[in-house]
Amino acid sequence: MIVLKLGGSAITDKDRPETLDGQSLAAATDAIASSFGADGDGAVDELVIVHGGGSFGHHNASEHGVTTTAGSRDPAAIHDIHGAMTTLNEFVLSRLLERDVPAVPVHPFSAAHRDADGELALPSGQVETLVGEGFVPVLHGDLVAHVGEGATVVSGDELVAELACSLDADRIGLCSTVPGVLDDADTVVPEIGSFDAVADVLGESESTDVTGGMAAKVQALLELDAEASIFGLEGIERFLAGENPGTTVQ
Amino acid sequence: MIVLKLGGSAITDKDRPETLDGQSLAAATDAIASSFGADGDGAVDELVIVHGGGSFGHHNASEHGVTTTAGSRDPAAIHDIHGAMTTLNEFVLSRLLERDVPAVPVHPFSAAHRDADGELALPSGQVETLVGEGFVPVLHGDLVAHVGEGATVVSGDELVAELACSLDADRIGLCSTVPGVLDDADTVVPEIGSFDAVADVLGESESTDVTGGMAAKVQALLELDAEASIFGLEGIERFLAGENPGTTVQ
Repeated sequence: MIVLKLGGSAITDKDRPETLDGQSLAAATDAIASSFGADGDGAVDELVIVHGGGSFGHHNASEHGVTTTAGSRDPAAIHDIHGAMTTLNEFVLSRLLERDVPAVPVHPFSAAHRDADGELALPSGQVETLVGEGFVPVLHGDLVAHVGEGATVVSGDELVAELACSLDADRIGLCSTVPGVLDDADTVVPEIGSFDAVADVLGESESTDVTGGMAAKVQALLELDAEASIFGLEGIERFLAGENPGTTVQ
Repeated sequence: MIVLKLGGSAITDKDRPETLDGQSLAAATDAIASSFGADGDGAVDELVIVHGGGSFGHHNASEHGVTTTAGSRDPAAIHDIHGAMTTLNEFVLSRLLERDVPAVPVHPFSAAHRDADGELALPSGQVETLVGEGFVPVLHGDLVAHVGEGATVVSGDELVAELACSLDADRIGLCSTVPGVLDDADTVVPEIGSFDAVADVLGESESTDVTGGMAAKVQALLELDAEASIFGLEGIERFLAGENPGTTVQ
């Protein structure tokens, strides 16, 4: 079982609201299509995809002042933000379907919620069953109901960490805009075993936002049992073939 | 907590594929809007809506040979059927939002699944949290992942029964095309306490299809703890005001 995250910045044009990066999305979905269900040793049969919001969700969320902790009860705001994310999800699904990947949507807003402490509950029976039946569930950063807050943001990274645990994933891949975690000389750090070893390069994790920064990503991945890789678009195919492109976090 | 089902036939034109019954949907959503969040004794604060498929889901499902027990693994069929249902859901949501009902979508495909015995698992923490935060979740007949079958149909009636239990609903309302359960003289039977008492009128429950027939509806409602009413469009407002229009099943 592999959980693959397509970073929002990697598949959208972050500078223009609700604009796809069509070329990048095509490259990503080409790589997935050539790996999923392929014959041979490197074949991937069990795959869950999560994508971020990029220029879709983020603009709308910040316009309405909604974050992972500050929510909204305004139905118009909910539909605006959730609607932008489902629009991006439809783009991703259609590109995958065009390439014969049996992708189906799983909207976190329909499935998950947070308790009063902000703890995320994401039941995974539906995802597990879809994977078992040969589908590729595609989740996305979204809003979720939040006790005492209305609805708040759930990031793609948070979904990945949650799914990796509940699905007992073998491998996790984060496809980002950079080819991995970079050191001071902009060289990819091939392996990270502890946060201390890269703290200098990444900066304090406190200073990064939950839905984005690399330090937060690395720290979250270090807490998981599964092996995780961080790589760029060009790394997807190698990752799905069982190799370790970019940075491996263990 | 009230669970209100809007029958697919009641809000769509069953004879024409993917055609709304705009007038009926307007009447239904008017009645909901005038009851939900209203001041006074009859105010409804906690409401979950489930709608059927009517001319949206049913045509597509039968075209692809998909039922509650016979599934499909064809992504095109899944998107066709699920897509028709989410289209109807968007119509229902927009009519409710226009009338200031804080309606939000909960797609069963994203949340639920069936095990190998066809048993439905529908986690309800998201629905409960949305209701607690003042929203009106709107679910719909849909497809769900089904172990060994791909994806099969889940009917609105099945969702209502499931939610009534898991949410510990106080009252259940089924808005249908008829004003209640009718006897031989086409008069509404005001109260039903056991299936035997109405078996003559309803016919054998075995002969009715799971997603539709009145006999199956009555039998399912008799098994629930909550009081349930079956009524026509004109009964919605009275039902939400705490009265017992149509037939009460207890």
